[in-house]
Amino acid sequence: MDMELLIKQITNEVMAKISNSDESSSSVATMEKKASTNTNLNHQVITGPQIARMIDHTLLKPDSTDQQIIQLCEEAKQYNFATVCVNPYWVSTAAKELKGSNVGITTVVGFPLGSTSTFNKISEARDAIAAGATEIDMVINIGALKSGDYEAVKKDIEGVVLACRDQTIVKVIIETGYLNDEEKKKACMLSKMAGADFVKTSTGFGPGHATPEDISLMRATVGPEMGVKASAGVRDLDTARKLVAAGATRIGASSSIAIIKGEKTSGSY
Amino acid sequence: MDMELLIKQITNEVMAKISNSDESSSSVATMEKKASTNTNLNHQVITGPQIARMIDHTLLKPDSTDQQIIQLCEEAKQYNFATVCVNPYWVSTAAKELKGSNVGITTVVGFPLGSTSTFNKISEARDAIAAGATEIDMVINIGALKSGDYEAVKKDIEGVVLACRDQTIVKVIIETGYLNDEEKKKACMLSKMAGADFVKTSTGFGPGHATPEDISLMRATVGPEMGVKASAGVRDLDTARKLVAAGATRIGASSSIAIIKGEKTSGSY
Repeated sequence: MDMELLIKQITNEVMAKISNSDESSSSVATMEKKASTNTNLNHQVITGPQIARMIDHTLLKPDSTDQQIIQLCEEAKQYNFATVCVNPYWVSTAAKELKGSNVGITTVVGFPLGSTSTFNKISEARDAIAAGATEIDMVINIGALKSGDYEAVKKDIEGVVLACRDQTIVKVIIETGYLNDEEKKKACMLSKMAGADFVKTSTGFGPGHATPEDISLMRATVGPEMGVKASAGVRDLDTARKLVAAGATRIGASSSIAIIKGEKTSGSY
Repeated sequence: MDMELLIKQITNEVMAKISNSDESSSSVATMEKKASTNTNLNHQVITGPQIARMIDHTLLKPDSTDQQIIQLCEEAKQYNFATVCVNPYWVSTAAKELKGSNVGITTVVGFPLGSTSTFNKISEARDAIAAGATEIDMVINIGALKSGDYEAVKKDIEGVVLACRDQTIVKVIIETGYLNDEEKKKACMLSKMAGADFVKTSTGFGPGHATPEDISLMRATVGPEMGVKASAGVRDLDTARKLVAAGATRIGASSSIAIIKGEKTSGSY
């Protein structure tokens, strides 16, 4: 199969659909409108508690301690966040703390550089699932994408999807800060073709952060069925609302409590 | 075995030896002198070509392309660097390029956060060795160290040492930027106890970089037999010389060519 050709065809189809829209004079607005079909919350101003069930309450700093991970889990239970997002080493700790609750456990694979082998991403995902992970946020192979090796990028995602299918949600971090718009679209399409459940903007350790423009572009590319996760730099309710309005269905944040309480913070991630 | 007690005893012994020295009024100078027993090069000003064989020529940026990796390997052969240091995904590419040369292949494990599981670090190391890696730079479990779980930190290193022993050199990145001096010493002692070949300062993705002070402290802690690698922020010959004088036996750098030619650069890593 000629991947490049296939990608071009899909790109053209998506672009054609966008430009055929009534509001083609403003492509971002158009994409937002199309994205809004994805959730009923978009047409009204959503509240903090409504947004809580969309948040992956996140602590990925490498010097985080066991006590901080336990506190993260306590907060997630108290505020009813969708999941906690922790590094693989802490998954078993989180699983113990969250047992019996309705808070899931997200962990990261090939994180944050995405430059590990496919074998290792698969192995890391299976290990994390065995430890109790319910969602896997993997980093796309940015170097292979930049090298034009789309087959390697797709197979890398397919491997993790295979390791997770029917058991665990797979989100693909495309790390927008390294990519131009064409590359962002390619990354989204390859993620969709590989069977991932979500595309996600950023690791929080790279150069970029979630913007409504990127969320709109990602939503327009993957269509209404896939999830889109906005992560890095989401620190207040206003920003979270804008990202949801642009098409995000999940938010990654460490300032989650401030977000749902409508406060402003200067926290990381 | 009470790890904390053992660590305290070793710390006391090292500190006693340092303070018993003739030049105890200047502990850094004293440590540098002790470290200087480790290499004959320390007492004279070493030249660029001499330092080349101490350099891991490094490219770990996540958006590096196949062409950039191939160029890195060409440079390593031309300038006779010790190894190239690349992300796991690129090890097989480097192995192909470097076949028949005397340039080794360093790759990274649990990089750069160190927060993956021990199982995964072992699996990642074996996978990298199978692909052609000759040296493994693993990141210590910083969070476990900060949590005071020294047994977990040591077992994590032991696992990778077991995966590499008699086949592949193991360097332990202690990521100095997150640690105070007491923690740096603990990290070095645990690395030594676990059987690692080197301790190494930094990933280049964290908050710190290699300093002569840290190299002296690390050398004084591990003694003359282990290797000490200075990495991150080494961009010119003068800095490299100071780090070698302080006890470094390996340099990690992306500005390697500028270093051996005695030029100044503002490059990354």
